[in-house]
This record gives sequence, structure tokens and C-alpha cells, in this order.
Amino acid sequence: MQKRRTAISPTREENYSDWYQEVIKKADLAEHTKVRGSMVMKPWGYALWENIRRILNEKFEETGHENAYFPLFIPLSYLEKEAQHVEGFAKECAVVTHHRLEQDEKGRLIPKGKLEEPLIVRPTSEMIIGETYAKWVESYRDLPILLNQWANVVRWEMRTRLFLRTTEFLWQEGHTAHETKEEALFETKQMLNVYVDFCREYLAMPVVPGQKTEEERFPGAVSTYTIEAMMQDRKALQAGTSHFLGQNFAKSSGIQFQSRTGDVEYAWTTSWGVTTRLIGAMVMMHSDDDGLILPPAIASKHVVILPIIPNQEQEKHILDYANRLKKDLEKLQYKGSAIKVHIDKREMRGGEKMWSWVKKGAPIRLEIGPKEYEAKTVSLFQRTKPPKDRRSYLANELSSLLPELLDEVQKELFTKADAFRKTHTHRIDSLEDLYRFFTPKNPSSPEIHGGFALAPFDPSQSADKLQEDLGVTVRCIPEEQPQEEGICILSKKKTRTYAIFAKAY
Amino acid sequence: MQKRRTAISPTREENYSDWYQEVIKKADLAEHTKVRGSMVMKPWGYALWENIRRILNEKFEETGHENAYFPLFIPLSYLEKEAQHVEGFAKECAVVTHHRLEQDEKGRLIPKGKLEEPLIVRPTSEMIIGETYAKWVESYRDLPILLNQWANVVRWEMRTRLFLRTTEFLWQEGHTAHETKEEALFETKQMLNVYVDFCREYLAMPVVPGQKTEEERFPGAVSTYTIEAMMQDRKALQAGTSHFLGQNFAKSSGIQFQSRTGDVEYAWTTSWGVTTRLIGAMVMMHSDDDGLILPPAIASKHVVILPIIPNQEQEKHILDYANRLKKDLEKLQYKGSAIKVHIDKREMRGGEKMWSWVKKGAPIRLEIGPKEYEAKTVSLFQRTKPPKDRRSYLANELSSLLPELLDEVQKELFTKADAFRKTHTHRIDSLEDLYRFFTPKNPSSPEIHGGFALAPFDPSQSADKLQEDLGVTVRCIPEEQPQEEGICILSKKKTRTYAIFAKAY
Repeated sequence: MQKRRTAISPTREENYSDWYQEVIKKADLAEHTKVRGSMVMKPWGYALWENIRRILNEKFEETGHENAYFPLFIPLSYLEKEAQHVEGFAKECAVVTHHRLEQDEKGRLIPKGKLEEPLIVRPTSEMIIGETYAKWVESYRDLPILLNQWANVVRWEMRTRLFLRTTEFLWQEGHTAHETKEEALFETKQMLNVYVDFCREYLAMPVVPGQKTEEERFPGAVSTYTIEAMMQDRKALQAGTSHFLGQNFAKSSGIQFQSRTGDVEYAWTTSWGVTTRLIGAMVMMHSDDDGLILPPAIASKHVVILPIIPNQEQEKHILDYANRLKKDLEKLQYKGSAIKVHIDKREMRGGEKMWSWVKKGAPIRLEIGPKEYEAKTVSLFQRTKPPKDRRSYLANELSSLLPELLDEVQKELFTKADAFRKTHTHRIDSLEDLYRFFTPKNPSSPEIHGGFALAPFDPSQSADKLQEDLGVTVRCIPEEQPQEEGICILSKKKTRTYAIFAKAY
Repeated sequence: MQKRRTAISPTREENYSDWYQEVIKKADLAEHTKVRGSMVMKPWGYALWENIRRILNEKFEETGHENAYFPLFIPLSYLEKEAQHVEGFAKECAVVTHHRLEQDEKGRLIPKGKLEEPLIVRPTSEMIIGETYAKWVESYRDLPILLNQWANVVRWEMRTRLFLRTTEFLWQEGHTAHETKEEALFETKQMLNVYVDFCREYLAMPVVPGQKTEEERFPGAVSTYTIEAMMQDRKALQAGTSHFLGQNFAKSSGIQFQSRTGDVEYAWTTSWGVTTRLIGAMVMMHSDDDGLILPPAIASKHVVILPIIPNQEQEKHILDYANRLKKDLEKLQYKGSAIKVHIDKREMRGGEKMWSWVKKGAPIRLEIGPKEYEAKTVSLFQRTKPPKDRRSYLANELSSLLPELLDEVQKELFTKADAFRKTHTHRIDSLEDLYRFFTPKNPSSPEIHGGFALAPFDPSQSADKLQEDLGVTVRCIPEEQPQEEGICILSKKKTRTYAIFAKAY
């Protein structure tokens, strides 16, 4: 049997990395620019970020947070205050050294107006926000401070990849300060759970929550919690983190308060964030060889109507019918917001138009031609089914059915991804098995192999050698731990701790 | 009669500039940081920007625009392509010259990794977006491109003032490319009108639309349209601009397309934007000597409930009553979105608490104590009335009345500001009168004087001398022009054009 031609070339099996780039390109999500490592997020891609922002904002509000905005620039002297933090970010900072330009005799622009103190473009805002909190906090009555900011940040990356790793990216960063250690720890875990729920419910991403080992922690944090997702090449992708910063940053920024007992104490702080990376993760997790597949709960258009107009005479009827349908469907809600419908009126060959929406991942396509108009029906195509798999519905019927249908698609994507994750999560009990697990077996698709190896591991061990030999790192100590004792695959000592090892983005 | 003590000191009359800073401080909108000219937008202030963003996004969508996101950094070589543009922005650019930091022997951080080509932090994005559009456009079928971006931009300002002039600020910038000059001109004016309507309807700001003279144009534009607002010290504040860029930027970026007749033509482009400045304008226009006054259509909380609890016994009843009331009121809508109610449960003296909301400008305060609880009433205070002006309503009654009441407040603010603008807009027909008009008369409040002088003016004249002598500039050639011929106050020649002259922020 000949294989069907796919809309994306290469396929996942042929070349997973190129497939990913091609899915993004064909879905019109984003593109590279000539500006080092920076991308343009096109409307179809940026709309996903806007939805992420809208939904997370609701969840942040429910958990008592407010949004604020802090400066883009951080004076060098702020950064110097936290030694580990500096070490973590110094190698990848954009540094502003001048504040104007002058033309030289050849007309070329030359930086002028050297700053007394250089500024760095924020790679993260602990230090600048800490300085502000130090001014705001005097007494325990001023705590907790529960703020979040939506912002752009810059980390100078040498190797970039659309959404997954870019020099400039968009994110949200929560920064909270608390009276007690317990409160701060509660906050850290609460926000991790917000991310877990959000990823599962909206992005249909079955993420694994856990804790980072010391080696993999955020620079300056006491502990880092993470959510790890498995991509279709079985690599891990860190999809969000929540840091318990202890009193480290409060000490370096001077966030002190008078406690209930009258003592002067340092506050306990946390920070937590997700980035535009989430979009890359979603693309890699759900898309297929025909392009993007958008989970309905995050799609900016749930339904695309394709009017099929054989001649000018019938144009008005069919477009009227499409408009009425759009209006009816947009009265419906899915996951608490209005269903969005787009009518594609572009003048273009029908096949080309249809495939453009397959590649863009619209959850539901409706074709409306003279037949459908006559019979008051629609021809419905679902992105998670084969592209030509047509079902007929009465238009009336659809409006009661659509939210349910979208929910089915949403659940189908989650279930599929979750089954994939389970299939490729293996219990490993020896180093030999680990090496074997991470060795490509299929020469025609060497990128797709391995998975999550759950192995007994003493977290005080360094896993550097695995990184060198296999490109494998400890992704996390997952929340869900096997109950029995094991033998650490590295130290060969008894341990009750299990870690997930994987190759990662 | 002794003057009532005001919550803000100094008052507007005593020192208008200090009054403004103090209103912002006491309303908890924003504060300065140690980072040159950058501010922190606190939750109460940032929420205003989020509302501006939400409402304008709807209006942009209605007019066919989509959001996207373009890089923060612009290579110097892009900037060099448009000579006037460079000249306009070169003096105030943050320049990134290095991409990492290293510690020297004393442990100080030193910029390292010099970039081959310096990058500037975007002061505006015409050049970077133009480069991208040039790639996207091949044929007239690819036009129009109608995009907007919400972003931070940086202009190195020597003298800064919260919201009105900061080194980093937030804005939206629309960038569109069109097939014809007419379309681009239509777009330019359409977006100006979007701003006019938004300011009037939501910010209760009666802005004057008009065109800038050549001297005051955006660097590189063919024409710049503006909206000018009058502050309470009668100075003008430019609240938004919309630029018709002709083919200037298309030529420098290479946005070319094959036309319907097969010729290769340059696209016609526009750009338009409003910034966090709008918040400053709103503060300056509506607030009084007791602090901020928020127009209900932009307030993040429409109603604040202050429970008055004389003893623990009554606490539960009163808080339950407050919660029920909040729930009922939040079912209501004002201007298409849900009414937001906040219950202030802080432990704090009643007077202090009440004044904190006066200073924060909440449109409606409700006091609920044992009396109100018993009688199922509320004591209502409206921010636009004297602080102690109490009205009693049945709780039931309020829920049918509240949207109307909010609308009254909204209209009252607009009407008041519009009357003020009209009172201080004077027809001036000679230079002497103009000099007299802009001379302070009241020595106890020298800042408050002048206004908008509408005078016959030949726009090819330079108004430099007025700037030098009086600090007065041409704000705009207003859309609404007197019908009769006049004598240009500078050239003394006949003209049919009238301009608005004013001191400005």
C-alpha cells in the first residue's frame, strides 16, 4: 500500500527537527528574523499566547495575585548582589552601554553617551523586583506580596529554535514575598499546580510535576519545582517552573520586616513562570504529518467555515447561510468563553484553502456549498480525524452539539498524549539498561527513541557523566514516587528516591 | 470660612506639578525606581493599562486588525535606512553593545562579547516591522497587512515624569501596509477616530483631533494626525498619534508588490499608537485635591464595599451581607463588561480606610454597618461628590440602578472636562494677544494659566520663536476649522488655516 502524501515534509519519522520547523512555518505561527535569535510571532501564533495570558490571568487572580510592571533594565550592581544568580545569567546577558547614536564622517551610526553603570536587559526580574519589595515591606502587615508580570526577557542564546529557545521571549513571572517559610513553600507548590492544571486542561498536555535536583536548580533558588512534558520524539521539555527562593533573594535585596514578635526578619520569597515555549511544546506534542493540531481550549478560532460557491448566483445565499451559522455558533461557550468562528472568503482553490486550515490546526472545519445550503446541513471535518473524513449535521443540531464535540477533541488529544507518555516511560534499574534505553534503535528515524527513564537515584549524585555520554539529564524527582526501595543506578547505594532521566529540549 | 483640609497636599493651585506626583503616589498607581527614568507600575495603575488594552483590542479587531509580536532589538543598519527617522531617534537610543558579563579580578562585572553590529532597543518599530513586511508582500493580493503590537519601547529621556515621560514605556503600535494611497489615508484617519472615540467614551477625555505641522511631525511621516487633550493647568497633552507614512518607509524597507496592472510598486504604510501616557493624562484631567478620580468605564473596581463592624458578634452578618451584595452587583454589566466589586476587609481605622479609596479614585463606595444590615440598605458615596455626601439606597434598588449611576458619573466627568476645555479655548487674532494669553496672571498659581489659543496660522511658518519666548508650540491644525479667512499671526498674510497653540507636556 502506498503511503498517503502528507502536507508536511519531512514527516516526524523522516526528520523530527525539520518537521517541527515546517509545521510552524506552514501554520503561520512564527518566523525567524535577521535579529539574532529573535522571532516574529505572527497573528495565528500570537493569538495562542494571548489565550494563555487570558486563562492564566484568571487563575492567578483566583489565587489572589495581581499584575504589575517592573523595569526592563537592571543595573549591574543589582545583579552582583546574588552570587549564584550572577553566575547563572552572566554568560547570556544583553548589555546596554550607551544611550545615543551619532553619525561619523562616513555617515555610519556610532554608539555615544557611555553610561556610568551599564544596564542589562532583564533575563528574569528577581533582583529588580526584590529592590522594590525591600522598599514596600516594613512590617508583617505588608506581607504577603503576590504579584505577577507579563513581560519580555532576553537571554543570549547561541543556538536558537522557534518558540523553544529564542534570545528574546515572552513570559509571565510571578514574584511573591511571605512572612513564613511554610507560606512561601505553599505558594511555590500551589503555583506549580496551577501550571499542571492549566497544561492538562487547556493545552491537553499531560505534564509530570516534580522537583529539580541541585544541579538543575534555578540559580539562587533553594528548590525548583518543574513540570516536564514528553514530546513525540520522546524527549522531555521543561514547560514551567516554580522556585522556592528561601531567604536568599530577600537577603541580597534587603527585604526585611518587623515580625509579630517584634524581631526583624527576612522575608521568604518565591518566583514562578511559563514562557512562549509552551506554544512550542504544544506544537511538538499534538501535531501530525499534516501540520498543527490545536487543542480547542486554546485555539483562537474553534471553527472555520469554508463556503463553496460554484457560481455568482448562489454566492449570496451561501454567504448568508454561513453568516447566520457563524452568528448562531458564536452564541455558544466553550470552557467559559465564546466560541469563535471564522469564515474564509479568500478567493483560492478549494483544495488549497482546505489544506491551509488543516496545516493551521483549526479544530473543526465546516464546508458549506449548494447541497448543504439546500438541505440546511453542514459538512463537518474534525482535525483529529483523517482530512477527508466528512460528517453531515443539520445546522440546528450542530449548535447544541458543538461544545460537546470540542470537548471530545480536547479529551482525545489529552488521552492520546497521556497514553504516549505512559508507553514511553520505563522503569530502569541499572546503568546498562539506561544506556541501552537511550540508544537509537531505528536507523531511519534516529531522533525518535528513548523516553522517560524512571530510575532509583540518590539526588546528591552528579549526573554529569550521563549528560556527556548520552545527552541525558535528570528531569525531575517526580511527585509520584514508587513505594519500594531501590538501588541508585549511579552510586549503587540503597535509595527511596526515584528520578526521571531523559534527553531534553 | 476656613478651607477644608484636602487629602492631597499641595493642591492643584498651590503646585500643580507636585500635586500630580502626589495624586499618583497616594493612589498607589506607580513609583520611580533607581533605574534611570523607569517606573514601576503598581497593580492599581497597571490594571488601568490592562483595561485600555482590552478595550482597544476590541476596537482594533472590529476594524480588521490582528495582534502580532516583533523583536525588541533593532540592528543599527536597519535604522540607518531612513534618514529623517534616524535623526528623530538617534539622540535617545539605548544601545546594546555586548552579550555577556565577566567578573574582573576585583569581582566586578564587566561587559564582554562585543557585538559585531550594535543593537538598539526599539524606540518604535517601523524599521523592524518594515523589514518583515518586505518579505511577506509580493503581490497586491498580500495587501493590506493590518497588524498591531503591544510592547515596551525605550527612548532615553533626560527629564522624566511618571506616566507622562519615562525612558521605558508601554504602548501599542499599529503598522499597516496598503495597495493605494487612499486606503492608507483612510486607515490613518480611521485609527485616529478610534482613539478619539475611545478617549471620549472610556477615559471621559474630550480630545481635539487634528493634524501636526511639518515641524511637529513624526520623523519620516508624510503627515501626522494627533489628539490633544487639555489638562487642568490648561496645558496640552498629546494623547495619541496616527501617521500617514506615504511610501517613505516602504522605500527604505523595500516593501514592494506587483500591482493589478503588473507594475512593481511601493506599498503605502501607516503607523499609530497610544501609550501609558494616557494614564497620566487621565489622572491630570479628572483628579481633584482629594486625589484620583477614575472614570467608571476604565476603573478596575467600580464599587468598593467598606464593611463597618462594631463588634465580633455582628461580623458574620455584615460580611455575609457584603458578600451577597457583591455577588448581586457583579451580575451587572457596565459598557459591555462585568461590574467589579471589591470588599475591603483590612483591619484599619474606618476614616483612614475610607480616605484611602477616595485617594484611589474608586467611583462608588458603599458603607455597610449594623444599621444598613438591619434596614437592608447601603450608604452610597460617589467619588465625584463631596467625600461625606452620603445617600441611602435599598440594596435591591441598587442593583437596578448601578449601571445608570456609573454612566452618570462617566458623563459628568466628560461634561466637566469638556466645559473646562471650551472655557479655556480662546480665539486669538494677533501675536500680542497670544503673548498676553500665555502670561501667568495669578502669582499664587503661576503654573495654571493660558489654554488653547486658536489662531490663524500659515502652517509653512516656523513657530520656533514662540517656543523660545513662551514655551508654546503648535499643537495641531484642528479638524474643526473656523469658516472665515484670517490673518496669520506670524506672517501677517491671509490664511484659511487655524492652528491651536498651547504649552504642552
